[in-house]
Amino acid sequence: MTPLVCAVPVKAESPSLQDNTADYDRLQQALVKHLADDRSLYLPFSRIVPVTRRFREAGFSGYALLNRLQDQWVVADFLAAEPEVIAGMALDLGTTHLEATLIDLQTGQMLAENNLENSQIRFGADILSRIHHATTKRRQLRKPDADFLDPGLQELQQTIVETVNELTGKLAESSGIQACDIRALAVSGNTTMAHLLLGVDPYHICREPYIPLFNRVPDIEASQLDLVIHGAAPVWVMPSVGSYFGGDLISGILASGMAQSSATRMLIDVGTNAEVVLGNSEWLIACAGAAGPALEGGVARMGMRAGPGAIEFVSIDPDTFTMEYRTIADAPALGICGSGLIDLVAALYLCRLIDIRGKIRDPAKEKDPLRLAFMQEHILEHEGKRVFRVTGASASAKGREVLLEQIDLDAMMRSKAAMYAILTTLVNQVGLEFTDLEEIIVAGAFGRHINPEKAITLGMLPDLPLNTYRAIGNSSLRGAERVLLDGDARLACEKIVSGITYLELNVNQEFMLRFSGSRFIPHTDTALFPSVPNFHSKS
Amino acid sequence: MTPLVCAVPVKAESPSLQDNTADYDRLQQALVKHLADDRSLYLPFSRIVPVTRRFREAGFSGYALLNRLQDQWVVADFLAAEPEVIAGMALDLGTTHLEATLIDLQTGQMLAENNLENSQIRFGADILSRIHHATTKRRQLRKPDADFLDPGLQELQQTIVETVNELTGKLAESSGIQACDIRALAVSGNTTMAHLLLGVDPYHICREPYIPLFNRVPDIEASQLDLVIHGAAPVWVMPSVGSYFGGDLISGILASGMAQSSATRMLIDVGTNAEVVLGNSEWLIACAGAAGPALEGGVARMGMRAGPGAIEFVSIDPDTFTMEYRTIADAPALGICGSGLIDLVAALYLCRLIDIRGKIRDPAKEKDPLRLAFMQEHILEHEGKRVFRVTGASASAKGREVLLEQIDLDAMMRSKAAMYAILTTLVNQVGLEFTDLEEIIVAGAFGRHINPEKAITLGMLPDLPLNTYRAIGNSSLRGAERVLLDGDARLACEKIVSGITYLELNVNQEFMLRFSGSRFIPHTDTALFPSVPNFHSKS
Repeated sequence: MTPLVCAVPVKAESPSLQDNTADYDRLQQALVKHLADDRSLYLPFSRIVPVTRRFREAGFSGYALLNRLQDQWVVADFLAAEPEVIAGMALDLGTTHLEATLIDLQTGQMLAENNLENSQIRFGADILSRIHHATTKRRQLRKPDADFLDPGLQELQQTIVETVNELTGKLAESSGIQACDIRALAVSGNTTMAHLLLGVDPYHICREPYIPLFNRVPDIEASQLDLVIHGAAPVWVMPSVGSYFGGDLISGILASGMAQSSATRMLIDVGTNAEVVLGNSEWLIACAGAAGPALEGGVARMGMRAGPGAIEFVSIDPDTFTMEYRTIADAPALGICGSGLIDLVAALYLCRLIDIRGKIRDPAKEKDPLRLAFMQEHILEHEGKRVFRVTGASASAKGREVLLEQIDLDAMMRSKAAMYAILTTLVNQVGLEFTDLEEIIVAGAFGRHINPEKAITLGMLPDLPLNTYRAIGNSSLRGAERVLLDGDARLACEKIVSGITYLELNVNQEFMLRFSGSRFIPHTDTALFPSVPNFHSKS
Repeated sequence: MTPLVCAVPVKAESPSLQDNTADYDRLQQALVKHLADDRSLYLPFSRIVPVTRRFREAGFSGYALLNRLQDQWVVADFLAAEPEVIAGMALDLGTTHLEATLIDLQTGQMLAENNLENSQIRFGADILSRIHHATTKRRQLRKPDADFLDPGLQELQQTIVETVNELTGKLAESSGIQACDIRALAVSGNTTMAHLLLGVDPYHICREPYIPLFNRVPDIEASQLDLVIHGAAPVWVMPSVGSYFGGDLISGILASGMAQSSATRMLIDVGTNAEVVLGNSEWLIACAGAAGPALEGGVARMGMRAGPGAIEFVSIDPDTFTMEYRTIADAPALGICGSGLIDLVAALYLCRLIDIRGKIRDPAKEKDPLRLAFMQEHILEHEGKRVFRVTGASASAKGREVLLEQIDLDAMMRSKAAMYAILTTLVNQVGLEFTDLEEIIVAGAFGRHINPEKAITLGMLPDLPLNTYRAIGNSSLRGAERVLLDGDARLACEKIVSGITYLELNVNQEFMLRFSGSRFIPHTDTALFPSVPNFHSKS
């Protein structure tokens, strides 16, 4: 293992009249002998005082904590005794949610895990509104340079730093480790979130030609960001490829292992955007598109993140019209999460309660008595619109019915169409078929909870044998953990970023055509989905 | 010229959908083509925001300001137009006095010069009392690391930073350049002053075995010290050799050119300490001792720095007993500076108004009527002690007589004895004679104002032809200027520090013997001073 921070034993002679080497030089001379490789050694000015003081108070012997940066070893601290644990924090910096783990860099063991909502949400639910908030009061060039931090950006940066610090506090508490003893941080997030965390202007990210200010960042230490972890902790920010291709996806590629194998795989990560990567150790191609929102909490009226009270599973028997659902933690129903929504819409289609365009059917036109009875119970007029009632008020947590509105269904249809169009466009771009893929890796909360069979029914994912699909959970976080522990993984990020081809869908005609063709269930061309019942002729 | 900071032209393509390189990468890619050597290029995190913003606002073309550090080029700023002046500040950080110049790094031209008293004096006139102040409330190891800055040290650091900033303001004002447009700072000072400026614990400097915390410092930028010059300005601190062998002397060696010539020279720098270096381009040996205090303002009761009102020249005719003196700027007499004191004591000796031990003679025992008359006018009882009156109250600025007390004379005798003992010990150490020296270079205010003939009369300097002596003024400041302008000079500092041999006088028996032998005027062994009248037999 080549973790980002390690402890190196030091044993130096005490000073004497015959050897009046300065403490600073004495420590470096003793350390140079014990370095694992020929990177140069550097004790930065900001660390001179505490490090040399501890070195002297420990009697010139003990353990130096070294940050293993790309070009050099940096002396971060000095300890009198060998550390039992060197804790590092891995962080998935999501637009809506933060997830983090605490890892022992000496053993790789997970010490704690936790998550928090991104409190930047109060400035806007999505990336665009946050960029807007960060940049509406952009300042003119001025001296001194401190003025460059625009007030909106500053507000967003402080907010996210506070959230990260709060999450750090939770990890520290549950692991029994002090926050200031966390010695490294690896962050993966989308390009905008990385800009906001670092307080770097995101203005041009959302304006043609969509140029981020940075993709790779230079070395940062925690004190530069007011983080509560140790001030000399290196902050590794996953590099990105472009404005809409962030470090979270690089992290996912790393965690999936797809860039280390000759077999061709596809990685699908659905968060606020759907991001898709295709490739192997020889080549990688990627694209992204707005296929996610309908599946995330906050867009559908009754949508919510996967958490207690979220309906995560729904079935309706097409013969008996018996409906069943299950909430997370069996709590009273609060809303419906992405996987529940996919289940529900697939069931509505198979039971012919919605048509192939995803429109709720009119009970007045229904002839089948069993279906009619079910429709009369579940399809209602609500505030002048036709809605599908998932649960009645009595079964819900807030005494409020859980309703699926047409507008939610429409968003869902756009998302599923976008997703399938993205996947087909990407595979077609390199002259492959879906059947050429060794594996389709589905990452994120979407991947963890989704039932691929239901997604296939909707025409969201290609009609392949179910064992082609593998869920890997929060791959953005898993990649950050790898980076904490493994120097090869840190180098691999660089290789992935420089080698990847990005396919811009905003200007891609083929994508637009495929998107239109995908706006039916399962698809305009039903032959693409042989396993899905076909009601096209009957609609 | 290879100045510490330079402007490099940059011309990059504007971003487009076909070229979505991030601003940060775009700047670096454009710059790499124009670097003067193969040092790596680095745009630190702290500079990303202002530098890339200016780069973009300048239309991706202009001039990058680069710091030429030892191992890398660091991007400090970006300017739309070629800078007319790149100002750098050279600073001699003295224990009692600061002197500084502003230099155009593109032409080497001096733009301004000024000086200020070191306001740390209110915490103690000398280094030892300041170390005491800095370290009396040293803190225990604690978290977070910020606690490491002991309160006394913090006070001293803030004070000196304020003084440096005040001096910067003066330079800025007289040159018409804004303080934040000063792009580099080179500082030379003794080891303790360097520690205090950087806020680094000086505790062990004055305690056996006299270990400084650092001799060489890593790269520092101005923002780390709260300096008012540009935040990204590199702060070059002259390396030192040991606790009592500071960067000011390394700077002096650099400025003297002695390490660049095969002829052997001696450099004498008298400040609070006397520091002496002997050598040539092949070898250098140095030592230091407390030979200075009597010559600096603040020790002798009527002592003062060379400034308006200071008596800088005194003569007494040994035949007529006519006394003459001259003050700086012909102002009413305020006190007496080092050169005036040496003139005066030499005259007192030649007129036999003091004996060979430096004691004021008793007028009651005088037989020569002319001398007696002069003695009766100038040798008085003052507060119960015998004193020599230099000027009466009417000629003085404050209506107060300028008096030389016996205690001042005793201090002067110790200083001159220490000086001669240092010089002879050092020359003897390498098996040379004074006559082997090509040149004796006298630096500092001492060197600028002293009349070597009078110093020889006292037995302070060896009895050599007067043209052996050369004054070079403030060599500490001159060396700092060279470092701003010349990369070879920066490398030479390193070479001087690593090559020099330091002779510790505190534990040197030979020095103690020579010191005792030097406590007469001109010396116990009068044969060493053939040019000086010898009154030993008559005393």
